Formats: sequence, structure tokens, C-alpha cells
Amino acid sequence: MASDADFMARALELAERGRGFVTPNPRVGAVLVRNGLIVAEGWHKVFGGPHAEVECLRDAEARGVAVAGAAMYVTLEPCNHFGKTPPCSRTLLESGVSRVVIGCLDPNPVAGGGLDLLRQGGLDVTIGVLEQECRDAIADFMIYKTQGRPAVTLKLAMTLDGRIASRTGDSGWVSCEASRRRVHALRASVQAVMVGGGTLRADNPRLTHRLEPDHALAGNPQPLAVVVTRRLPAADAPLALVRERPEALVILTGAAQAASAAGKGLAKLGVRLYGLPEAPDGSLALLPGLTRLREEAGVYTILCEGGGGLAGTLVGQGLADELALFYAPKVLADDRARAGFSGLAVPCMADAAGFRFCAVTRVGEDILATLRPLAVAGQLASQHP
Amino acid sequence: MASDADFMARALELAERGRGFVTPNPRVGAVLVRNGLIVAEGWHKVFGGPHAEVECLRDAEARGVAVAGAAMYVTLEPCNHFGKTPPCSRTLLESGVSRVVIGCLDPNPVAGGGLDLLRQGGLDVTIGVLEQECRDAIADFMIYKTQGRPAVTLKLAMTLDGRIASRTGDSGWVSCEASRRRVHALRASVQAVMVGGGTLRADNPRLTHRLEPDHALAGNPQPLAVVVTRRLPAADAPLALVRERPEALVILTGAAQAASAAGKGLAKLGVRLYGLPEAPDGSLALLPGLTRLREEAGVYTILCEGGGGLAGTLVGQGLADELALFYAPKVLADDRARAGFSGLAVPCMADAAGFRFCAVTRVGEDILATLRPLAVAGQLASQHP
Ligand SMILES: NC(=O)c1ccc[n+]([C@@H]2O[C@H](COP(=O)([O-])OP(=O)(O)OC[C@H]3O[C@@H](n4cnc5c(N)ncnc54)[C@H](OP(=O)(O)O)[C@@H]3O)[C@@H](O)[C@H]2O)c1
Ligand SMILES: NC(=O)c1ccc[n+]([C@@H]2O[C@H](COP(=O)([O-])OP(=O)(O)OC[C@H]3O[C@@H](n4cnc5c(N)ncnc54)[C@H](OP(=O)(O)O)[C@@H]3O)[C@@H](O)[C@H]2O)c1
Repeated sequence: MASDADFMARALELAERGRGFVTPNPRVGAVLVRNGLIVAEGWHKVFGGPHAEVECLRDAEARGVAVAGAAMYVTLEPCNHFGKTPPCSRTLLESGVSRVVIGCLDPNPVAGGGLDLLRQGGLDVTIGVLEQECRDAIADFMIYKTQGRPAVTLKLAMTLDGRIASRTGDSGWVSCEASRRRVHALRASVQAVMVGGGTLRADNPRLTHRLEPDHALAGNPQPLAVVVTRRLPAADAPLALVRERPEALVILTGAAQAASAAGKGLAKLGVRLYGLPEAPDGSLALLPGLTRLREEAGVYTILCEGGGGLAGTLVGQGLADELALFYAPKVLADDRARAGFSGLAVPCMADAAGFRFCAVTRVGEDILATLRPLAVAGQLASQHP
Repeated sequence: MASDADFMARALELAERGRGFVTPNPRVGAVLVRNGLIVAEGWHKVFGGPHAEVECLRDAEARGVAVAGAAMYVTLEPCNHFGKTPPCSRTLLESGVSRVVIGCLDPNPVAGGGLDLLRQGGLDVTIGVLEQECRDAIADFMIYKTQGRPAVTLKLAMTLDGRIASRTGDSGWVSCEASRRRVHALRASVQAVMVGGGTLRADNPRLTHRLEPDHALAGNPQPLAVVVTRRLPAADAPLALVRERPEALVILTGAAQAASAAGKGLAKLGVRLYGLPEAPDGSLALLPGLTRLREEAGVYTILCEGGGGLAGTLVGQGLADELALFYAPKVLADDRARAGFSGLAVPCMADAAGFRFCAVTRVGEDILATLRPLAVAGQLASQHP
């Protein structure tokens, strides 16, 4: 017998299909259940399009399924405001469903309140089924909504012992082909891809997504390229990012470097340079740079692809909102190989940055572990009425 | 509708229950299937006891289930020799089952041949269902049977970035309580636990299993303690292994150290010292030490618990037969933290030691990844007739 959690798990799977299409809206999924079986499904498919609940009711109609008396499972509290679409809570009341099961409440004060309306309308409402998972599904949304900066996914392809390149800097290939395809889909679902200066110099990357034409995300615009470095490349450097699409390149650098002759040379090509203040440890404080990317360049979600120095900085500055760690089944066992995370000085194990596993899956020969930080700044506490 | 693979997966689960009880026999599981349902189960429970097929037939009898015409799924080819028990292939023929599904063939020439007998007897026989998984279940057995050395499981508790201790050597605790309990069960299922000299000096470990009294393995004998070091401790060193159970301690060391005054002092306490030759890179060649542990100390399976130096050596010398890697959801990002695998020099990523993932599971807040090497010396090639 399937449980509330099973139905919500399916709604979460559907929500995930919106990744890369609905930004800056949250990903939401819904299923309609009758007599213990899922009879219709919906998810928020595209920014500005119908919400998941409406998609699900339409699916029911298309299948000729009766809605009256059925139960609607939805990962996020139905909205209660007139935005691009009429409020879903009203639509649900009018639909005739008798029960609504909600994954997590909408922390957005404008959209929230749907719950009260549903209860006032006499519906049987349950809240908090797979709540943590449903909150994770909107975690990125919460960050760019409440913190005014992009949500940061930090992806690394590491050996089992946490290395991203050999002692000679050889990093091709750590992960398997299936993992690398997955990374291109990640790139196509964000507005910017970020690397550190070491990776720029070592790999001369393009940072574009290159997906098979039949991939659902293949038509998405190319992400901006963001590089963090105080060692600005020359305007005539043989770097793909500078030569091929300077207008898509943003360099996060020191204030002095941004104002330097080299900086001006790059700016003349169309490269954007954001001068950043220093953090207490002398590194660049990345938060102001991220905030500018959000405000001036429309970046809601950003994928950081390393290397180790940038990854360490992001963890140290509390800016790694999601880790996507591909582990390849290899061991280097070489202390001089490049570490996936480096640059911090942490005396005690108890001071290590804490995360929690959200999911672990096999991808080809590799595994992909997804984690989120234990301490989440922007996330509101649980608030069941 | 359940498939052959589903039934074999259950037989594999049952086989696993023999871990720690059947050594030096292989772990084997079996299920009896009628009309697409499992109606009886069995596994090899204890060394010298009935084989899995016989246990399964007895279970059918106890449940009053008819055997005639049913299908037996067994992870390993039924034996064909009179050992401690009569040959299972004959027992199966007489039982009336009409079909036998075999995970992998028995590479042991004495026990093998059951397949032919079953086919000559007119049974419908299928071979190779979940073959890789079934071969993995007997991989340890194959190693101590065909290579005359213990099978080595290398366990490490690491951060996400592959560290086992902080820069100050702080290693308490990397993994969660559930993972640490799991390690004690691993210790109780082997005949010896091995660490390197660094871990001996840093942690002063006991290397005993400490399980709740109601744990199935709690009554198992304590494993021998094996330490690899050229820096012999003094006979009066304040080390638990030397003070509390010197007769259970084996030190793998250089030939010169074994013959030294310090070595003789330890030997007088009952400590065994095995002098080893040098490998080309100047480290101790561990294979002769492992072989002596198998021959002189009855060690069929050995658990290596690190640290990084010993783990690197085992991988470098091709002696890590199974990796049991506990990843705790933490990041140190400190280049001076102790690596889980260290000591090798590997110029190219393509030269990294290659493994394959066998299983990945959640253990409390951690994940446990189990891997086996891509190149397995002692394993016979697949040989379907
Ligand atoms: N397997 C993978 O997933 C993967 C991914 C990426 C890279 N890699 C490999 O990793 C290696 C590069 O690693 P890496 O650690 O040297 O490079 P990195 O992280 O790409 O770059 C480190 C550099 O980034 C700059 N930087 C980052 N954060 C900063 C901050 N907060 N403040 C100031 N500067 C900051 C500094 O640049 P400047 O010194 O320029 O000022 C620093 O030296 C290469 O071998 C590459 O192939 C592997
Ligand atoms: N989290 C975990 O799972 C875990 C597990 C164990 C240890 N640790 C931590 O890891 C740290 C110790 O790591 P480590 O790398 O220093 O220690 P280690 O691997 O325990 O010891 C390394 C030493 O072992 C000896 N050795 C190993 N293989 C050898 C070979 N083939 N030939 C010659 N000598 C060999 C050498 O000993 P000599 O120098 O004595 O001659 C070498 O210096 C400690 O902080 C400990 O707390 C953590």
C-alpha cells in the first residue's frame, strides 16, 4: 500500500523536471490520488507558465479522471496571490478535491496563506510530508529570493581520495562520460559557471554546455563565465573565454586589479570586472561579487566547477549551498596531487564544515553525492501552524 | 512480476548473513521459488554446517512447502563432492526441484562439477544471474583459497575531501556512531585487524571489537592485532597492544628490526615479529607477511584500518581486495590535513589505481561505499559451458 511519502516522492520527481526551465520560480510538483493510486500528474514546467497544481488538474481533465473527492499532493504550499496566474488555493477549492497534502509551507510572505484558505474552505489539509526533501527542492529559490545572491552549486569530479588532478596537474579525465554529460546538463540549467584562476590557466576552459541536440536543455542560453582571480589575463592572452566570448565573461578580482591597465584592457573587449573587498584572511570576499551577479547580470543560480582553491574559499565563506560531488572509482594516494578542496587551515576535526547527504546515485561508473550545508543562513525555521 | 535477478538478489542478502560465521567457507545463499513467489530460504550459517541449498530445503520442509517442481536459486554452483556434507547437486536432484538458477560457477576444482550432474539429471539449469555480484560474494574466499594469503578489506573513515585526520592529527570523530558500530561488526568478522605505525603511535588503539552483547557477532573471538612498522615500540611502551595482549600482536617489520634487541624484547613478551623484504620503492613488501599470517596464524580475512600510509602501500602493492570507505558529510579543505591514502607518486590520472563500486549505502549520517579492484589477480575468468 503506497503511503503519503510515496506520493510526495513522486511529486518531488516531477518537480525536478522543471530544473533549468522555471528559474527564477521554484520547482514544484503535484500528483492527484484516488483510491490509493496516482491518477494525474503535473509540475511547474516553464517560467510564467501554470503552477504544478493547475498542470495536474489539467492532466486529470485530459485523462477524463474525476477530481471531486480526490487528494492533491503538492511539494509546496499552494499560492494565494494573483501573480502571472490566479491563486492555486482558490483553483483547488473550486476543483472539488477533498484533501490536500503539502510538502512544505511557502516561506514567501506574498505567496503564502494558501493553507489558511484551504482550511477555511473545509478541505482536509496535511502539512510536512517529506518536508526536508521538499524544502531542499526550493532551497535555491529561497536563497536568491531572500539573500539577493545566486544559489551556488559546487560541482567537483574527484578520485575516491578527494583529488581533482595529479601532481603534474593532469585532470583528464577524472570522471566517466556519463558524469561529464551530467555536468553539461547542469551548466545548461544555470545562468553562470564559475571557476578559479588556477583552472583558467590550467585548462583554458570554455564553460559552455555542449548537449546532444535532442536533450531537453540543449536550447537553453549559454551561461555566463565567471572567473575568480587577482592575476588578470592579458587582453591578448590565448584563452578561449577572452578570445571567443569576452562579453560573456565576468572576472571577480581585487579592486586594484579591476582599476589597473590590464583590467581596462579587458574591459575594452567587453569583459566585466567586479572589484571585490578582502576577507579577513586576505582572500577576496565573494559575497559582494555574487550579489552583483544577481543584481546586474540576472544570475539566480551559479555552478562552480572548482578547482580546489575556489572550492575551499566557497566552503570557508559559507557560500556552497549545494555540493554535487562526482566520485570516480580511482585512488591516487599521492600527497602532492591537487585536492578538490584546499586553502583552509582547520585545526580540529570538529571545526570541519558540516553538510548532510541529500542523495547518492550511480552515474555510469561513478557515484554522485549531493549535499547541503547543515547551517543554512537564509532558510526560515519550520513553522507548522 | 519478480525476475530471476530479484530472486538472486534475495539469495545474495541471505548469503551475507553468513559473514563472520562461515570462514574459511564461502558465503552462499539460496531461495526456493514457486509460482513466482519465494516460499523458502536458506544460507550457509556456520563453518562445517549444512550448505545453503540444504538449509533452504529444510526450511521448505519446516514450512510444509512442496519442493517438487519448484526452482532453486543459489548464489554459487552446488557442490559435487563429499566434504563435511554430502554433495548438494545430488541432494537437489533427489529433492524434485525442476529448475536450478546459479549465480556463478564454483572455481574450486574439487567442489565444482555440480552443474554437469544437474544437467545430466535432466534439470533445467540457468547460470550467470547477477554473476558479478555473486562472484563478489565469494571473492574473499577465492583469494585465501587460491593465493594463500588473507583477503584484505581496507576500511577508512574519511571526510568528503578524503581526509582522516586534521593537520594536528585530530581524528576523533570523523564518522558517525552508526558507522563506528559497523566497524566493530567488521572487526568481529575477521581474524586480524591491521594498522600502520603512524596510527599505533597517534591513537594507541586496542583493535578489539566491542559490540553490544545481543549482537550476533558479539561472541566471536577477538581478532589478532597486526601493526606494520620499522620503528618498533619499546617492550615497556605505554601501548595497549603491547601491555594488554602481546600474544595477540603481530608486527610486520624489516628483517633487521625483527632481529634487533628491541625485537627480541618484544618477542619475549609473546609478540610475534615477521621480518619482511623490501619492495623496489624501499617500503616493506607486505605480501610475504600476509602469507605468513595465513599460514601460521590462521588469518583468512584481515581488516586494515589505515592510516593513510598503510592504505597507500596496500593500494600500491595491489593488496586492497575490498575498499570499505565511510564518507562523513564534512569538508576540511586543508592541504595539511592527513590524507586517507598517501605515500605514492602518480604522475598521470590514467595511472590511478582503478576500482569499481559494488555498493553504496547510507549509514546514519554517513555513506559507506564498497569497491573492488578492476584487476583481480586470483579471480578466474568467466567460463560458461
Ligand atoms: N576534476 C575537476 O572537477 C576539476 C575542476 C576544476 C579544476 N580542476 C583542476 O584543478 C586544478 C586547479 O586547481 P587550483 O586549486 O589550482 O585552482 P582554482 O581553484 O581554479 O584556482 C585557485 C585560484 O583562484 C583564485 N581564487 C579563488 N578564490 C579566491 C578568493 N576567494 N580570493 C582570491 N583568489 C581566489 C586565486 O587566483 P589567482 O592566483 O589567479 O589570483 C587562486 O589561486 C587544475 O589542475 C584543474 O585542471 C579539476
Ligand atoms: N579516520 C580513520 O579511519 C583513521 C584510521 C586510522 C588512522 N587514522 C589517523 O591517521 C593518522 C595516521 O596516519 P599515517 O598515514 O601517519 O599512519 P599509518 O598508515 O598508520 O602509518 C604509516 C606508517 O606505517 C608504516 N608502514 C605502513 N606500510 C608500510 C610499508 N609498506 N613499509 C614500511 N612501513 C610501512 C610506516 O611506519 P614506521 O614509520 O613506523 O616505520 C609508516 O610511517 C593518525 O592521525 C590517525 O589518527 C584515521
